[in-house]
Amino acid sequence: MEYSNCWLQYHSLSNANQREIVVLCKEKSAILLNAVNELDLAFHSLYGRKITVVTEEDRYQTAKTGIYLKSDSSVSMQDNSKDGYTITCAAGKCTITATGEAGLLYGVFALLRNLQVQKVADFDVWSFQEEKTPSNPLRMLNHWDNMDGSIERGYSGKSFFFGKDELLVNERTVMYARLVASVGINAVVINNVNVKGAATALISDRYYNELHSMAEILAAYGVQLFISINFAAPIELGGLATADPCDSSVRSWWKKRAEELWSKVPSLGGFLVKADSEGRPGPFTYGRTHADGANMLADALRPFAGLVIWRCFVYNCQQDWRDTKTDRARAGYDNFMPLDGTFADNVILQIKNGPMDFQVREPIAPLFGGLKNTNIILEVQIAQEYTGQQRHVCYLIPWFKEILLFHTCCGKTNDQVVDIVSGRTYNNHNCGIAAVSNTGDDFNWTGHDLAGANLYGYGRLAFDTELSAETIATEWISETFGTKEKIQEHVLKILMMSWRTYEKYTSPLGIGWMVKPNGHYGPDVDGYEYDRWGTYHRADHKGIGVDRTGSGTGYYDQYNEPLASMYADITSCPEELLLFFHHVDYDYILTSGKTVLQHIYDTHFEGADEAEMFLELWQQLQGMMEEDIYQRTLERFLHQKDHAKEWRDVINSYFYRKTGIIDQYHRPLY
Amino acid sequence: MEYSNCWLQYHSLSNANQREIVVLCKEKSAILLNAVNELDLAFHSLYGRKITVVTEEDRYQTAKTGIYLKSDSSVSMQDNSKDGYTITCAAGKCTITATGEAGLLYGVFALLRNLQVQKVADFDVWSFQEEKTPSNPLRMLNHWDNMDGSIERGYSGKSFFFGKDELLVNERTVMYARLVASVGINAVVINNVNVKGAATALISDRYYNELHSMAEILAAYGVQLFISINFAAPIELGGLATADPCDSSVRSWWKKRAEELWSKVPSLGGFLVKADSEGRPGPFTYGRTHADGANMLADALRPFAGLVIWRCFVYNCQQDWRDTKTDRARAGYDNFMPLDGTFADNVILQIKNGPMDFQVREPIAPLFGGLKNTNIILEVQIAQEYTGQQRHVCYLIPWFKEILLFHTCCGKTNDQVVDIVSGRTYNNHNCGIAAVSNTGDDFNWTGHDLAGANLYGYGRLAFDTELSAETIATEWISETFGTKEKIQEHVLKILMMSWRTYEKYTSPLGIGWMVKPNGHYGPDVDGYEYDRWGTYHRADHKGIGVDRTGSGTGYYDQYNEPLASMYADITSCPEELLLFFHHVDYDYILTSGKTVLQHIYDTHFEGADEAEMFLELWQQLQGMMEEDIYQRTLERFLHQKDHAKEWRDVINSYFYRKTGIIDQYHRPLY
Repeated sequence: MEYSNCWLQYHSLSNANQREIVVLCKEKSAILLNAVNELDLAFHSLYGRKITVVTEEDRYQTAKTGIYLKSDSSVSMQDNSKDGYTITCAAGKCTITATGEAGLLYGVFALLRNLQVQKVADFDVWSFQEEKTPSNPLRMLNHWDNMDGSIERGYSGKSFFFGKDELLVNERTVMYARLVASVGINAVVINNVNVKGAATALISDRYYNELHSMAEILAAYGVQLFISINFAAPIELGGLATADPCDSSVRSWWKKRAEELWSKVPSLGGFLVKADSEGRPGPFTYGRTHADGANMLADALRPFAGLVIWRCFVYNCQQDWRDTKTDRARAGYDNFMPLDGTFADNVILQIKNGPMDFQVREPIAPLFGGLKNTNIILEVQIAQEYTGQQRHVCYLIPWFKEILLFHTCCGKTNDQVVDIVSGRTYNNHNCGIAAVSNTGDDFNWTGHDLAGANLYGYGRLAFDTELSAETIATEWISETFGTKEKIQEHVLKILMMSWRTYEKYTSPLGIGWMVKPNGHYGPDVDGYEYDRWGTYHRADHKGIGVDRTGSGTGYYDQYNEPLASMYADITSCPEELLLFFHHVDYDYILTSGKTVLQHIYDTHFEGADEAEMFLELWQQLQGMMEEDIYQRTLERFLHQKDHAKEWRDVINSYFYRKTGIIDQYHRPLY
Repeated sequence: MEYSNCWLQYHSLSNANQREIVVLCKEKSAILLNAVNELDLAFHSLYGRKITVVTEEDRYQTAKTGIYLKSDSSVSMQDNSKDGYTITCAAGKCTITATGEAGLLYGVFALLRNLQVQKVADFDVWSFQEEKTPSNPLRMLNHWDNMDGSIERGYSGKSFFFGKDELLVNERTVMYARLVASVGINAVVINNVNVKGAATALISDRYYNELHSMAEILAAYGVQLFISINFAAPIELGGLATADPCDSSVRSWWKKRAEELWSKVPSLGGFLVKADSEGRPGPFTYGRTHADGANMLADALRPFAGLVIWRCFVYNCQQDWRDTKTDRARAGYDNFMPLDGTFADNVILQIKNGPMDFQVREPIAPLFGGLKNTNIILEVQIAQEYTGQQRHVCYLIPWFKEILLFHTCCGKTNDQVVDIVSGRTYNNHNCGIAAVSNTGDDFNWTGHDLAGANLYGYGRLAFDTELSAETIATEWISETFGTKEKIQEHVLKILMMSWRTYEKYTSPLGIGWMVKPNGHYGPDVDGYEYDRWGTYHRADHKGIGVDRTGSGTGYYDQYNEPLASMYADITSCPEELLLFFHHVDYDYILTSGKTVLQHIYDTHFEGADEAEMFLELWQQLQGMMEEDIYQRTLERFLHQKDHAKEWRDVINSYFYRKTGIIDQYHRPLY
């Protein structure tokens, strides 16, 4: 089993000072043992230094160099901050203080990260102070791994959680736990939200032992295991005639199942549920509401402090494309707003960042700022389903920052998405962020080596939403590639440009969906235009875009004012979302002075040029890193350069053929 | 195992005369036993009459009613006609004469068919005379069945030849043999031309026993078994380092393999080969020609009179869509014409009817009329890959008739496709027709019950190319549904209209390919437009079509004169192929007086209306046939009606959006 250590390489910083380091750790819990192990491993790699673990304060006090992992439950802290930590380093002594064990582990990873980012040559003379409380209570990863080993929307090989309908519990599981814990992830769902076949039986005695082993490995890194469940499990697994959430036999089936499950896997966090969506069963089958369904499960899980995370990705996937009034973008709000305030306290609604589905650009889903009495998790996707599938580089953290900083106008203060999901706005604690994971059993975990920045970055951002995308990228580059300046500079430039570059050469101005159906890779402008998925651009020879104002689908009105008015008015609508909200003529003039059509041409030529520039920037790094990393990433950049041109030419030619209007710079169109 | 008898139902004609029938059959070969069995089964069902088999002429002469299966090897006959037969019936005595045993079997099936078609109530007073010699030496079916049980482009369930990497030899195999023999098929390839995995090992001892059983069942119905082989078998199966056809170790590997194979399965007919096509291995890998590859195999198979059938479906499937000079339509001719005259006598080139790939309408492949010194088989497809996938009704025999009757202008006489493939034109005998089969393990064999007419019709037409599509349909209806007049009338009307109806509501004027990629089902006008498959329509806001004249790809010039000039001149080019040969403006006026665009609108509305009419015609037959046949076919007609509207609206709306030109009758466009 071969795998990379990703950003836990601990590239050597100096071998000048090899003095022993005394680590004081009074307790011997699994988490603290792992924290100490990490220090051992890291200091050996970074400095060639050994650590000695002691439990007596004396030995630490008399040592020249020492690290004190200090549990301090006396400090009264708010709910989130059980995972918080304080680091104080000076003159060779470093104290990491935390209320909880996970906080101490995070402190250790923070210490190691800062040593690398600051290129600290001598730990003994370093002064450092940091105090952090995680921004979000829940910082989750959702894996869409199937039990046959395949991964839905996976672009990095096969699953390392499952194979041949069995759980895989091995040394890679430990490495996974280290990686995600190092960036602050504290909860993972290991199986696909589309629960079928053997996965339905994950909550049966067939898998209890393996689940328990998996859960313990994760828990020893402060990570809680969650499971996606099949809402029809009472039928498929229990042999009942119904899965009606209001049926007493169903309710008691889930209660008993939960009792059994938690007795075998006590550290389990709860369930993730995709119900009544894209063919999955749910409460609608029985004329019940999502609240009926979620609350029924919540009742069953309450004795074990289990959470029910209920996805809001519910829409009609059998739409008639001729119907211009039905609007998939409306569906989440229309379905869930009427239920606000009716969900149990251990239910959390998980809401995708946009109203559609992880396009390179979308408005923020109006349920953020809509729901006021419901626990919410923001769902983002680091699996690059619509953003280049880890063959193109697309660093998503700048986009996630925009999402988090969006003002929903739900109140005068604390109205940003980040305020809502952190629990600040409505003073709740079952909330946070989840990301659909981009991992698989490829050597480098993420297919594209640079996609590692999204896995790292997502975790870091979820833990500390104040961090800038650039800071996070810089950290990741230092930890992954070491501190060579040219790598630092070129990779940072590529990463920071990459999302907007991808946006430029793909579908324009917020319209989305110009991808090949099913696989979602590569351009196909009309691929979804005459289909049932509710994803249209409505282009004709005169114009393009979806009218979601009052004269159209009325979607704009799901936003709080003044957002609704801003989106409805073509002159105030942000131009990057112009075609999402408005149907406009190709000769409509943008603030740049360009027509919409010329803007499309220009951005596509620019985007493809930038992809070519990424390749050149990368090629200048040959010899500065391990050759195999260089080569496998080079291949992806070569492909991205060609594929960006394909995107450019298909999109531009489509509009050229439809309009007959040439590019004002006479660049080739076909 | 449940399956229908299809057209071998033998619906009762009369029970008035139940006198015994004496069948004189002097030999007891497997084929003759099957012929006698068929008489037994049929006369019991048709008339409630028993047959008694005798070997002595006396017993037959003294009987009141008798059938004489008479082998007459004294008659000198041309090559084809070993499968021919003569039937003479009068006053209760009927003699079927043939040179070969298969001829006698065909005579029996012909006798039974004629009794049904003519609704003969009393066999004893029936006078009948028929003499037939099959039009084509080889009358093949190609099954694209994979050994895991799936079928490539299969629309009728799973394979009945294979499952879980094993051959299935059972009573359904016998029924299959009866069905295909009854219409004159004399050769079948049971495995997919894309030979992968276990199928590569079909020619190894792992499968010899099962192959032998399969071959013997088929041979007992006059059907020869062929196998698709993997050109890379010497590597994958033999462990050689190469599959180079000029390498002596490769040549001797194939020789030895053939010796072993024929020693175990002596009735084997030969190999079908798809090489250097769509990713399959072939001689190009080693810088060799198709002739090198085919002749090498031919050498190995010659001692056993084995045939090598080599497919000409070779083209560049990595084309740049921006490149308007490269033309997939040219590929077959460009690849194979230079090799004319270089193939061994036991090699046959198998050529698809059109230069592209089984579209609803294409010109005839110019290799017909081009190749003069090469054995040829015409390949058609009754699997309705591009013609509604056996969910739409599309009776293809009218189309096959057009193909066969096409004058290639390769000479003054005998210049039709039918002349060439029958061997008439160039006086050869390794030639004929092959069809990609439409069968699977569905109860009705063909998914759509009415698709049975294509299986039946293909065989009948291959045996007797003089038959009209209408005659064949009428036969099939009588044999399948019995003789009720209203069924006769409605089903005949549906069948005879269905191909042109399908053409009307799908891609217009010969351009093809407006289907969803990969699955090939349902409309997607641009689905293949910006892709690598060489299948483009080149539509812009002003016009549509591919210029294949001298100003374009020059494809027209692969035809003999005066065809080349006819196609090149827009005024003489047949309008149903207009967009195949010319790029024309939407306002170009057709002979109907309509513009191209209005023609598109009109045909699409007409076609969808006709599909609705088919449904109504079918609904009027309820109660006149078995309810389950009625119902499962009704479902398909309901779907076809809706899906034809989907086709209509997508195609029309695409052009409306591209041009802004409304329908002159103001019908809805979207």
